[in-house]
Amino acid sequence: MTTFRALHAPGSMLLLPNAWDYASAAALTAAGFPAIGTTSLGVAAANGLPDGEGRARVETVALARLLVRLPAMITVDIEAGFSEDPNEVATLTAELAALGAAGINLEDGRPAGTLADPARQADLIAAARSGAPDLFINARVDTFWLNQATSETQSRAHRYLAAGADGIFVPGLTDENLLRDLLSTMDAPLNLLYSPHWHPVDHLAELGVRRVSTGSLLFRAALDAAISTATAIRANAPIPSNPPSYAEIQHLATLIHL
Amino acid sequence: MTTFRALHAPGSMLLLPNAWDYASAAALTAAGFPAIGTTSLGVAAANGLPDGEGRARVETVALARLLVRLPAMITVDIEAGFSEDPNEVATLTAELAALGAAGINLEDGRPAGTLADPARQADLIAAARSGAPDLFINARVDTFWLNQATSETQSRAHRYLAAGADGIFVPGLTDENLLRDLLSTMDAPLNLLYSPHWHPVDHLAELGVRRVSTGSLLFRAALDAAISTATAIRANAPIPSNPPSYAEIQHLATLIHL
Repeated sequence: MTTFRALHAPGSMLLLPNAWDYASAAALTAAGFPAIGTTSLGVAAANGLPDGEGRARVETVALARLLVRLPAMITVDIEAGFSEDPNEVATLTAELAALGAAGINLEDGRPAGTLADPARQADLIAAARSGAPDLFINARVDTFWLNQATSETQSRAHRYLAAGADGIFVPGLTDENLLRDLLSTMDAPLNLLYSPHWHPVDHLAELGVRRVSTGSLLFRAALDAAISTATAIRANAPIPSNPPSYAEIQHLATLIHL
Repeated sequence: MTTFRALHAPGSMLLLPNAWDYASAAALTAAGFPAIGTTSLGVAAANGLPDGEGRARVETVALARLLVRLPAMITVDIEAGFSEDPNEVATLTAELAALGAAGINLEDGRPAGTLADPARQADLIAAARSGAPDLFINARVDTFWLNQATSETQSRAHRYLAAGADGIFVPGLTDENLLRDLLSTMDAPLNLLYSPHWHPVDHLAELGVRRVSTGSLLFRAALDAAISTATAIRANAPIPSNPPSYAEIQHLATLIHL
């Protein structure tokens, strides 16, 4: 059986779509994606909470509990761990691993757009590892995402790997020269965030990127389609898409791993 | 202040979009819709449950609790009431009214595609009314939806109105002559389900339809957009839409009624 870690082997690239509820994860599984991530923006917004402020722990675990029923590998975005207390983060990763999750994302961005002290973030990563020895820990370096301290990207990545991370995620990195530099210093899998800038995505695989995730993009595209459909009807205009039928969606609720 | 009931006044037509989570309801509110319904298919599927089997009571109430924070009137699809016990249905409508919901949908379709006995359904509607004197009760007649006993549509509608319903919802009705017949016998608001067949929707207002709802359409369009985006990226193709930004979606979580 292929493991989640094996999907990040050198020479391969995992395209990881991010879901926000059971239906989106089930539909992505049905579309043939072997592994599904979650989007913390989507999970928070779906539940009326802001993203990145550590307020969606209950909702995040509840969603993980649903998604592990699917015939897909599940990796869970836990923002910054929902606590600055390493023991709490270890408890959370142990809980997720026990549910059957294959991985997590843990970010060094903090509320109000600040960056964590890298030594403290390394402690959180070590705690996450101590709670779940086999979980794939994808350590997010938010220097480009928050557009600050970008010169620390490599040192943070290496520090987080030394603390027990399996891979590094640098959302917002869109400069190919900086990407090549970073890849040249790393043996561990590097994850980038998809953006139209990186189209076509196969080019990232050629460069050596081993995971590309969609972040909140699918969630945002979904909301956009819903609103565009409603406002088209209001304007007496044709609706913009031909979505799946009621029966097709109802079927997704039964797509449960035995 | 306009009440939800007033939006169904003779000569007016309420276009009611249906949401499945906080984000979709908030985005529809931000798009200017004064009232938002829920879609039981969406709520069930988002939570890994089948629709129409009475299994999503907890999730339905939890969502209502979030949506009443929005600056919009909220009407909640409660399937068939999640119980055959009228006392349970009265308890549910009382709970929803206390939360601040403006209305409910209550259907006479039952699991496995059967229709409820109309006398028993009238008892459930009377119970829903007894639990919540001011709630707008939209009684769904599923004869066309389930394609059976369509000749009973008018008699069911009148029976449900006599039992305390405020309006009648006949999803699946797409024959204009049958629609005119039904409208000619009813003073109460009639709700139809949007379908491309009824495009442009203003024509339904001219005929005298006083509510058009979107059912699961927006949810299905949303899922379709998410999957189309993910599979386009996988195929190295351009993504099909230009969705709202991270910041715009994050803002929705703060769109909370004071």
